[in-house]
Amino acid sequence: MTHQRLRVTVWNENVHETTEDHIAAVYPEGMHGAIAAGIAPLLDGAEIRTATLAEPEHGLTEEVLADTDVLLWWGHAAHGDVADEVVERVKRHVLGGMGIIVLHSGHFSKIFIELMGTTCSLQWRDDGDRELVWNVAPGHPITDGVEVPIVIDEQETYGEFFDVPAPDELVFISSFAGGEVFRSGATWRRGRGKVFYFSPGDQRYPVYHHPQVHRVLANGVRWAAPTGERVTPEVVHATNERRYERV
Amino acid sequence: MTHQRLRVTVWNENVHETTEDHIAAVYPEGMHGAIAAGIAPLLDGAEIRTATLAEPEHGLTEEVLADTDVLLWWGHAAHGDVADEVVERVKRHVLGGMGIIVLHSGHFSKIFIELMGTTCSLQWRDDGDRELVWNVAPGHPITDGVEVPIVIDEQETYGEFFDVPAPDELVFISSFAGGEVFRSGATWRRGRGKVFYFSPGDQRYPVYHHPQVHRVLANGVRWAAPTGERVTPEVVHATNERRYERV
Amino acid sequence: MTHQRLRVTVWNENVHETTEDHIAAVYPEGMHGAIAAGIAPLLDGAEIRTATLAEPEHGLTEEVLADTDVLLWWGHAAHGDVADEVVERVKRHVLGGMGIIVLHSGHFSKIFIELMGTTCSLQWRDDGDRELVWNVAPGHPITDGVEVPIVIDEQETYGEFFDVPAPDELVFISSFAGGEVFRSGATWRRGRGKVFYFSPGDQRYPVYHHPQVHRVLANGVRWAAPTGERVTPEVVHATNERRYERV
Amino acid sequence: MTHQRLRVTVWNENVHETTEDHIAAVYPEGMHGAIAAGIAPLLDGAEIRTATLAEPEHGLTEEVLADTDVLLWWGHAAHGDVADEVVERVKRHVLGGMGIIVLHSGHFSKIFIELMGTTCSLQWRDDGDRELVWNVAPGHPITDGVEVPIVIDEQETYGEFFDVPAPDELVFISSFAGGEVFRSGATWRRGRGKVFYFSPGDQRYPVYHHPQVHRVLANGVRWAAPTGERVTPEVVHATNERRYERV
Repeated sequence: MTHQRLRVTVWNENVHETTEDHIAAVYPEGMHGAIAAGIAPLLDGAEIRTATLAEPEHGLTEEVLADTDVLLWWGHAAHGDVADEVVERVKRHVLGGMGIIVLHSGHFSKIFIELMGTTCSLQWRDDGDRELVWNVAPGHPITDGVEVPIVIDEQETYGEFFDVPAPDELVFISSFAGGEVFRSGATWRRGRGKVFYFSPGDQRYPVYHHPQVHRVLANGVRWAAPTGERVTPEVVHATNERRYERV
Repeated sequence: MTHQRLRVTVWNENVHETTEDHIAAVYPEGMHGAIAAGIAPLLDGAEIRTATLAEPEHGLTEEVLADTDVLLWWGHAAHGDVADEVVERVKRHVLGGMGIIVLHSGHFSKIFIELMGTTCSLQWRDDGDRELVWNVAPGHPITDGVEVPIVIDEQETYGEFFDVPAPDELVFISSFAGGEVFRSGATWRRGRGKVFYFSPGDQRYPVYHHPQVHRVLANGVRWAAPTGERVTPEVVHATNERRYERV
Repeated sequence: MTHQRLRVTVWNENVHETTEDHIAAVYPEGMHGAIAAGIAPLLDGAEIRTATLAEPEHGLTEEVLADTDVLLWWGHAAHGDVADEVVERVKRHVLGGMGIIVLHSGHFSKIFIELMGTTCSLQWRDDGDRELVWNVAPGHPITDGVEVPIVIDEQETYGEFFDVPAPDELVFISSFAGGEVFRSGATWRRGRGKVFYFSPGDQRYPVYHHPQVHRVLANGVRWAAPTGERVTPEVVHATNERRYERV
Repeated sequence: MTHQRLRVTVWNENVHETTEDHIAAVYPEGMHGAIAAGIAPLLDGAEIRTATLAEPEHGLTEEVLADTDVLLWWGHAAHGDVADEVVERVKRHVLGGMGIIVLHSGHFSKIFIELMGTTCSLQWRDDGDRELVWNVAPGHPITDGVEVPIVIDEQETYGEFFDVPAPDELVFISSFAGGEVFRSGATWRRGRGKVFYFSPGDQRYPVYHHPQVHRVLANGVRWAAPTGERVTPEVVHATNERRYERV
């Protein structure tokens, strides 16, 4: 069952913010800080922590993950620096029931590629185009109370083809001023875990300060939270003893 | 958002129970009565009412439907007696966001056929076979806390091909002692509304007294409840004024 | 198995072309004529016929449908004039295996609404915006050899939310100069039949003279053709005699 | 477009057949030999070759894969001996458009796990139960001309939960004499490639000599063959130059 109090971990590589002044100016507390601050008021009483690449085990120890209902993931410049061991640990927890929300350039993270089984490549250009995020799943919990469309004044352009498996649910489609379209919000189930990918958000633009983006992410956290018992996804070779006599 | 207090209406044609003594012996309060009594303790504080074919407007007035989060539907002998006007009314509410759970022989109800767009036919025989209901969606809220498999000692056999659109989510698959299989639990979205079909349950067998069936139905009610604002599904011809200037 | 020689029927209400001079100027042979002429060279040897609303039984007799592998459907001004009996006949053939391609304003045709189970409503405005049709399913037979994107210089704008069940396969997404997006190519299976909806095409613009649109429609015909035996979709109440002894 | 002449490679680890006499007695030409011989007459003129683990690069060189439309994969005892480099090569070709059919215990092969993103675990016991394979997708090309159900007199039992992503298309469901059910035929798209998993088939039973199994596999080959241009699935970082001026 849903926990009384959601436990959320916002992970960010935190590289741009600590090495580029113009990014630090946009996100003085890091993108993880902006996201955590933005969703907190919308998730009454949730326990929200952050973790970054530079921490031991990237801040994603067995204990932290076991104590996390939903993990958010932002990465870009340092995908290759994420330890394979941590990726496998995160994957194991997702398959066991932990929710994961993958953000923007996280499409190329090891964990997302592992969960999808495809290249996860896409088309892009960075001209600060206006992005319009359209709701194609009214009634879906992730779109509850979200404006149609969300208007993001400036954002990097992502375009199709986005090489992911067909989503279980397509939630948002974006258009950009240059005419491109992108499946910008989509969900998949993997094992017992729920995966939500949401593309708006880039280090150069203040997208994670946008109230509507906060609303989507908070809704996403609630949607991705485990709905049943968390289990260990160890591969099960045990003989199935459920043989029944014919009546 | 989810209502504080779920409002549930259990609809039953209530024909077998009122015309056949051996059925009335199994369901002295009607199948609707057994279902309502079974799910109530699992839906803390939900407001659960029943309605039947014999009532004016089959008990499904505009007011009742507007005040219903999730409607359960059992029909068999009298599908043809359900007024088209009431069927259209129910459909309108489903498309606007009301959840609906269609039970067993309800696969041939007017409302289910209208929502599916197919014949909804299936194979069947009635030999009181044992049915095993297997969970193929662990982690799905409808399977939360449900035994694997659910063992139903005697039940009518339903078999494939079940002529419905590919489910959005396949939740349960049943086998029968005679070797048949059936997609016995499946979900679809239609408009803003959620549809859950669950096949176990027949007037001749005490399936709706089975605690595990109560658990599935209570979970189904929670799952099918509206997750966003209910709307009027009137066909919208209004010009879309959302034109944006290029940045 | 696929027929050696595909049999295609292009149906058009043919009202705008016969009552409005400026439409007749764009489509002197009717939209059905333009479509038939456009796809013929791409479907080597296919037998392509047309049918219109004004013909007896709208040209869609039992014999014509039994002799049709794929039916294309364009309607707009006269949806209400299509006889319910013909709609049910078409539906029966689709469920039995005949393919159907529903075009543009056909989203509000009786047959499409019946097959979908939803309102099929959408947002629209008509300002002659440029439409870009993006391929989100490379490798799908419907997109084989199609340019990315298809550029349609002027077209009516269709926008989300498009109230249809989640497609089995999403093939194209369009953007419009005004910033709207639309799921412009999508497929569903209903019974044994395949359904393809493709939105580009409007009576006021020469979209059905566009070579890339011809390519999509020809691919669609090949995709929607029956892949197995056509059957009568009569509701089957026959007892299933497939009971097996336990080994 | 489909090739005139399909090029098929049947891969088998070929370990049981070469190390256990009772298996060699069932499959004197190896399971790959039985499969190749069985499907050849049904794929008029297809070029069918075999490859095994013991060959250099397991017989799956860049050249062989580039010249293969559909690869069939049987593995069990030696999943761990398949070189990671070959697995990545196969994956690259699948994402680029090559079809793959994964057989029985191949559910635990490296390539299947990589493509699925889940554990691919399942329940099992080996008591030689009768398996009934039911068609839940009549009209699907994979089920064309296939008996309902396929009766396999003796086979290893596979049971749910089968930990794979929800299939794009569920084609077959099996029941076993002991009451278990299993999603025994399912499809997914990954990149431009099509994946078909079919569970019947075990080294101890003559399942790959069964004419109906030959029919399913031949249909599967035709279905999984590329329907568009094969591409290199290299991750694309190129700037998208498709910017359009507003009309």
